[in-house]
Amino acid sequence: MQTLTVELGERSYPIHIGQGLLDHPELLQGRIRGRTVLVVTNTTVAPLYLDRLVRTLHDLQVDTVVLPDGEQYKTLHVLDDIFSALLERRHDRGTTLIALGGGVVGDMTGFAAACYQRGVDFIQVPTTLLAQVDSSVGGKTGVNHPLGKNMIGAFHQPRCVVIDTTTLDTLPDRELSAGLAEVIKYGLIDDPEFFVWLEDNIERLREREPTALIHAIHRSCADKARVVAADERESGSRALLNLGHTFGHAIETGMGYGAWLHGEAVGTGMVMAARMSARLGWLSGEDLQRTERLIERAGLPVDPPPDLSPGRFLELMAVDKKVAAGRLRLVLLKGIGTAVVTGDFDPAALHATLSMHKAI
Amino acid sequence: MQTLTVELGERSYPIHIGQGLLDHPELLQGRIRGRTVLVVTNTTVAPLYLDRLVRTLHDLQVDTVVLPDGEQYKTLHVLDDIFSALLERRHDRGTTLIALGGGVVGDMTGFAAACYQRGVDFIQVPTTLLAQVDSSVGGKTGVNHPLGKNMIGAFHQPRCVVIDTTTLDTLPDRELSAGLAEVIKYGLIDDPEFFVWLEDNIERLREREPTALIHAIHRSCADKARVVAADERESGSRALLNLGHTFGHAIETGMGYGAWLHGEAVGTGMVMAARMSARLGWLSGEDLQRTERLIERAGLPVDPPPDLSPGRFLELMAVDKKVAAGRLRLVLLKGIGTAVVTGDFDPAALHATLSMHKAI
Repeated sequence: MQTLTVELGERSYPIHIGQGLLDHPELLQGRIRGRTVLVVTNTTVAPLYLDRLVRTLHDLQVDTVVLPDGEQYKTLHVLDDIFSALLERRHDRGTTLIALGGGVVGDMTGFAAACYQRGVDFIQVPTTLLAQVDSSVGGKTGVNHPLGKNMIGAFHQPRCVVIDTTTLDTLPDRELSAGLAEVIKYGLIDDPEFFVWLEDNIERLREREPTALIHAIHRSCADKARVVAADERESGSRALLNLGHTFGHAIETGMGYGAWLHGEAVGTGMVMAARMSARLGWLSGEDLQRTERLIERAGLPVDPPPDLSPGRFLELMAVDKKVAAGRLRLVLLKGIGTAVVTGDFDPAALHATLSMHKAI
Repeated sequence: MQTLTVELGERSYPIHIGQGLLDHPELLQGRIRGRTVLVVTNTTVAPLYLDRLVRTLHDLQVDTVVLPDGEQYKTLHVLDDIFSALLERRHDRGTTLIALGGGVVGDMTGFAAACYQRGVDFIQVPTTLLAQVDSSVGGKTGVNHPLGKNMIGAFHQPRCVVIDTTTLDTLPDRELSAGLAEVIKYGLIDDPEFFVWLEDNIERLREREPTALIHAIHRSCADKARVVAADERESGSRALLNLGHTFGHAIETGMGYGAWLHGEAVGTGMVMAARMSARLGWLSGEDLQRTERLIERAGLPVDPPPDLSPGRFLELMAVDKKVAAGRLRLVLLKGIGTAVVTGDFDPAALHATLSMHKAI
């Protein structure tokens, strides 16, 4: 087992990564302050891992709620099911919510915990690669609105994150690839050495070799934890983590939630950011090629859907949270391992990137 | 105009109290950081004061949303109307929400501000006495759930509170009395001198004499601000502000939201707390009488609804937030001006208080 800490003063918490951690009660119970927990999961994950987790927590009053599976259910309406379960089972302010599942379950459980009785504890037990390397770390929680993704939410840090890598054995290939998009993102943002390691090991990851997975997850979490510790509420540098996300959210919203996986949209979004950076003369042709090649080898799409027109793309990007005072800011690349957040670019480069589906 | 400050470090904010403040743009604009505002109000208040406020803010992009009026609309579902308005009008993270109305509008607007894009600014412009002396100060925001009041919410402090006492001219008598319940509460909790002032001036308040109103509102806000500054997130002494509320919430929920006004339920709840305190031998018969008498003179009910059985009362009280680790904690009185939070009482005194509608 590997452990690292997200350093946030009195809100600091550990991330444990290893095989079979679901069966280790001490990791969870050491971070639970009350006598009740509510495990939130979904219809896909429940038959696979819920019983095991409930068994591990047998010393406590364990209630469960099983949500429908899918980004289209990440809504205020479905969130209410969590509140109903908590109230029906009389959970008080001392309760702990546990998110068992992917990013949607984690985001919704965290947001429910942020709001229930104005804030209770929660723990992340992510079962998808994407959730393990990204959404379960950093305290961003929330739900979608028909007019925009993640528009309703809260910053609420978990009490701990327990990553059992054996849960990846049941993950579909397409979702594993989606998770690799966020892994590659950390290399691109500020960890060029990790990017090279990924170029050398991407096949081992796709084959789910345990040592490779644990290394990649640990390195991703450590990279993310560093950024979050420096800027918990995203007033500055944390925005770097949105590399590929402004393009990606436009794809997700434009195609309807669920058509593209989040990681797939981010993968293509990173390629678009790299293409635009190359067009601006900030990224070399070689580094653009390396970026496209690695994302493709991870099993991800590199071109946006042809039916999204540039006009629609821009419209969808403008509603994205990363718009400050009416000006579109993007995360772009000055090299592999050097991302920047900027609104200072030639709009023609953006239009050209949206207008054609191949790089310069 | 009188001004006081809620001292919360970098989240400190001013409360302005005076006649005609709705027409003073500088009070609001000095606390607005962006170029857009969304004014949230309801169908009762909109025809009375919305145009005036919009005129005062004419330098900014002002959008408005008008909610249905009533506690029964304080739901996640109606909250979504605020998010839709924000997204349709493309409000970004720099926007400010303004709550123009009573406690329901304030609680919902504050909670929407807490959640929109994980947190934007908001300002309280309370137009009922209850909101002016209680809900607009202190940062508690939220909505109800069919299974419990204020069960979903956030701590989110406003950027300022602007109290225009002329808005009370249009307040129905019944709602003025409801507000007086919270005013009397501050005297009972820790301000015996204010309690005596209220005994001498309750008729002037019911007649809406401006000087008396401004004094009572200022004193109430100052009392509350002191408690909030000492314990922003209610981990301890802030719970004193719940005097009368555990009994009161049970009445509100049991009778169905809207049947009793919140302040009416709190008024009766305080009488019940006083009766129980007297039964425990903590409060003298004379002080119990003074409490009942003042609440009655304020135009408030002093007996709970006869159709709420003691069993149902207990059930409703047990789901209230003030239950810590399964044990019911109540705010009781050791004298006028000396409230205590305690779970250490003879349950028989509680049962007896719930079982009969007259004091010992």
